[in-house]
Amino acid sequence: MTDQSVIAVDAMGGDEGLAVMLAGVAQARRAHDGMRFVLVGDEVQIADGLKRHPNLLANAEVVHAPEVIGGSDKPSQAIRRAKRTSMGIAIDLVKKGRAGAAVSAGNTGALMAMAKLALRTLPGIDRPALAAPLPTLGANDVIMLDLGANAEVDARNLVQFAVMGAAFARTTLELECPRVALLNIGSEEQKGTGEIRAAAAMLREAKVPLTFTGFVEGDKLARGDHDVIVCDGFAGNIALKTAEGTARFVADLLRRAFTSSVRSKLGFLISRPATELLREHLDPNNHNGAVFLGLNGIVVKSHGGATANGVAVAIGNAAKMVRADLTRRIADDLRNFAPEREGAAA
Amino acid sequence: MTDQSVIAVDAMGGDEGLAVMLAGVAQARRAHDGMRFVLVGDEVQIADGLKRHPNLLANAEVVHAPEVIGGSDKPSQAIRRAKRTSMGIAIDLVKKGRAGAAVSAGNTGALMAMAKLALRTLPGIDRPALAAPLPTLGANDVIMLDLGANAEVDARNLVQFAVMGAAFARTTLELECPRVALLNIGSEEQKGTGEIRAAAAMLREAKVPLTFTGFVEGDKLARGDHDVIVCDGFAGNIALKTAEGTARFVADLLRRAFTSSVRSKLGFLISRPATELLREHLDPNNHNGAVFLGLNGIVVKSHGGATANGVAVAIGNAAKMVRADLTRRIADDLRNFAPEREGAAA
Repeated sequence: MTDQSVIAVDAMGGDEGLAVMLAGVAQARRAHDGMRFVLVGDEVQIADGLKRHPNLLANAEVVHAPEVIGGSDKPSQAIRRAKRTSMGIAIDLVKKGRAGAAVSAGNTGALMAMAKLALRTLPGIDRPALAAPLPTLGANDVIMLDLGANAEVDARNLVQFAVMGAAFARTTLELECPRVALLNIGSEEQKGTGEIRAAAAMLREAKVPLTFTGFVEGDKLARGDHDVIVCDGFAGNIALKTAEGTARFVADLLRRAFTSSVRSKLGFLISRPATELLREHLDPNNHNGAVFLGLNGIVVKSHGGATANGVAVAIGNAAKMVRADLTRRIADDLRNFAPEREGAAA
Repeated sequence: MTDQSVIAVDAMGGDEGLAVMLAGVAQARRAHDGMRFVLVGDEVQIADGLKRHPNLLANAEVVHAPEVIGGSDKPSQAIRRAKRTSMGIAIDLVKKGRAGAAVSAGNTGALMAMAKLALRTLPGIDRPALAAPLPTLGANDVIMLDLGANAEVDARNLVQFAVMGAAFARTTLELECPRVALLNIGSEEQKGTGEIRAAAAMLREAKVPLTFTGFVEGDKLARGDHDVIVCDGFAGNIALKTAEGTARFVADLLRRAFTSSVRSKLGFLISRPATELLREHLDPNNHNGAVFLGLNGIVVKSHGGATANGVAVAIGNAAKMVRADLTRRIADDLRNFAPEREGAAA
């Protein structure tokens, strides 16, 4: 029986180092009563770091890992070292049922490869996909996948992503029949690659609990017209990062504009409470935590550059998925609406 | 001898209709002395529309076209009707040397197919690519290509795009040795698709007048660290539209923030001159006009939803490219640094 209240944290992954990871865990601990942690990494460094977070002492166990996966390690190399690394051991704790979810801010490719090897994919799923909720102007966030786990996919993979994304939206957004669109470079039927057009044809016919809303273009992601947006990991990663970069770009230009004259500085100071709210709403740290869907277990990727607040948000999201029994609900959906049969029939 | 001062305008293309196209032409005419136009489309409708723009009467000739390419017409269908459509006839005027460039706001796929068929690609180029300058935080714009002409490309196409993009940057940005990067989902060598990695290997070895700066991710497009960013048309279209959509999303949220209280409204009014400048800087109409690089002639795509101001900007950009003798300069570069030899060697 999996211990649902425990989150395994790869304490060594991420660009910001152990101190930020521990500060994030401490913040998550304060926000969620009853949450417990296994901190995986160099036990001496972790013990030293924990001195600054006495609130964790009663709720965190340390598991030693002698090695760390580097940012540029190849997935194939990483897999061979899985059992000795903080990332690999954190995933293994999920496999053994000692944790309900693993959270890492390390190398995405290595995390994906290790998680797939250790946890295996659910029946009916060929490849897991990285999914995350993104902010919109609408009533709820939009789930986007794949965000970078699979640079190249076929139509069948896209249909599986759609079914997993819809199950994720039903569980986390509490929607009965999510509206699912395929990301494309035009809304007309003949647009895009052959794989996307084939996936669209399969989704139009498929008997799955989702409303297929056709193609969506990059400028309409945040409008709130769709609940799930499906794409290959290359396009998804480009779209996600371009959105992040553009939001930062606009914010930088806005800062320049507001500091360009005494008058605009004054106006900025007066409207600051409103712009602060907006800044918070757009901060990627407040939307941190992408999950690998399609595995027998929950593995959450925290952004490599996330702040302590971002790490805490990712951990909170992981805990929510555990409580919602996400893995079982996706497996149920896949069993009931097996997309591979639709794929074979097309 | 091509008449360099004449721009052929597909007066019927675009979502906003003839009136906006003519208003854009009239605005361009006011901004550029000596510019002349051939307006292609329904002669009755154009004559009627010209009544509102007396400044064009002496500088615009009308050429009748009985048909218009629709937004959802397939390129293969459009080609068969080329000779009878406003888009096809505008391109034909460039082919015949009666205009230095053609500008259309119509169906991108049809425009690309017609332009390629009528004007042919330059020696050494397999496929033209859609390129446009985008705003950055740096000293100059960044040229991005392909923005949607080719949904799928191989490594050799990407290398050709890099050489054409560098030539375009040398001509329009006046840079000696542009910094050229490939758009990818990570900066490490093993990231991305096989085609992208192969293109990177070829660009590292190629003797071309550009500095290959490696891979760039979607969040770093607008930083000003690169002068040219190369990608397939699918990723480029997704990135461009996601950037547009995100800028609009942030502006919408900002508007909500500024109108959320009396205090923030006051602050907004005071700093308005500064935010107006920013709004203008980010308005896609002020960056309108993508060009099909790699053809024997200049064909500029204006955004389908562009305002009259946007149309005028696209026409101004087309005129600049004609004056800079862009086609000849790209052809020279291709002759001197023939990338296909590098491709064959890889």
